[in-house]
Amino acid sequence: MSTMPPRPPVTSPEPRPADALAPLAGAAVPRGRFITFEGIDGAGKSSQIAATVALLHARGIVVEQTREPGGTVLGERLRELLLHEPMHLETEAMLMFAARREHLAARIEPALAAGCWVVCDRFSDATFAYQVGGRGLARDKFEALEAWVHPGLQPDLTLVFDLAPEIAAARVAASGADPDRFEREQRDFFVRVREAYLERARLAPQRICVIDADRAPDVIRTEIERLLGERFFP
Amino acid sequence: MSTMPPRPPVTSPEPRPADALAPLAGAAVPRGRFITFEGIDGAGKSSQIAATVALLHARGIVVEQTREPGGTVLGERLRELLLHEPMHLETEAMLMFAARREHLAARIEPALAAGCWVVCDRFSDATFAYQVGGRGLARDKFEALEAWVHPGLQPDLTLVFDLAPEIAAARVAASGADPDRFEREQRDFFVRVREAYLERARLAPQRICVIDADRAPDVIRTEIERLLGERFFP
Repeated sequence: MSTMPPRPPVTSPEPRPADALAPLAGAAVPRGRFITFEGIDGAGKSSQIAATVALLHARGIVVEQTREPGGTVLGERLRELLLHEPMHLETEAMLMFAARREHLAARIEPALAAGCWVVCDRFSDATFAYQVGGRGLARDKFEALEAWVHPGLQPDLTLVFDLAPEIAAARVAASGADPDRFEREQRDFFVRVREAYLERARLAPQRICVIDADRAPDVIRTEIERLLGERFFP
Repeated sequence: MSTMPPRPPVTSPEPRPADALAPLAGAAVPRGRFITFEGIDGAGKSSQIAATVALLHARGIVVEQTREPGGTVLGERLRELLLHEPMHLETEAMLMFAARREHLAARIEPALAAGCWVVCDRFSDATFAYQVGGRGLARDKFEALEAWVHPGLQPDLTLVFDLAPEIAAARVAASGADPDRFEREQRDFFVRVREAYLERARLAPQRICVIDADRAPDVIRTEIERLLGERFFP
């Protein structure tokens, strides 16, 4: 899956990946970093995504902010179908990954190859949590699609916003928005989604950090800033 | 993938599959037959599908006539995207199979389980021909999706309408319809699609019959009637 351009001959020591993020004319461009935010609706991802993007901007990093399902013209059309049309659970999983395939080809891979960082609201961990955990999709069917769509690629860092479904549901209800096909699910569904997120985090502890989302936004923001610093700006 | 209802105890000899097609109250329902029509646009599938359905109706067979991509509300929405929106070739393959997954769950499998016959304009052989042959999708990626979406299921009979792309293109042009994203492809594309159909037929000669579509409609209809008779009404 690497789309790195061929490297020109270097006469000075190569920059460390986290260093020279602004491409220099004629120099090899270090691949950007891919950060994903995960969690059920109401867990507070959106405001922390905005804060994270601002934090990266402050370091002079070019950021591509996007979301799934969606992120492309086609992906947003598929998102509408996914959120509002009834369908078989395996169809739902395939459409999620079809939108992801397009997103990777059209936005994520080109941005990373150009040295930009990608901050994405949900990725394949969400499909594991919602379709395997929530809906009961067979694990081997999830794994087959994940291997089909992004073999060898995972985010560099994933932040799972963990919150009791009752608290998240109260926040969503307070927002007053019309619920979509997923938001209309009952508490048991979100309990399973949450458990699946936590299981996924146990399976990939180096990549996935679980964030206790039942705290003040400023406290969470400070924790994310610390995590990014440890991981990318040591 | 079997969705046959549990069979009640039988005290008389079981009917042969091609016999008792109208379900009897309390009796096990023999599974229906699944017939697909394949070929490039302009090869003359549509009129022969209509003739075949009429022929089956004349034998008292209940027929579900349908098409791909499409056949369900969701599938027809995906068809619109597939025919008109630009997308990565792997996205295209996934959307074809996503629409197929829904089609199988919502229409094909229930109809076959109820003893109805299904006559479908295109199925996975078309994805092999167009996406692998025409677009260059990797064969193992096609095979993985086919195994994901319909493990163990193939049509009982597939008729591939074979015609030189120039003749098919002239027929399509004469129809005066606006060409879609596939129909706008050049001759080389359809040469590859045709070759892929013929290769697929060589790989499954018991299931796939190649029909020389450069003949008068009545001659083709007679050949199809003979094929159906040999296969299903010996």
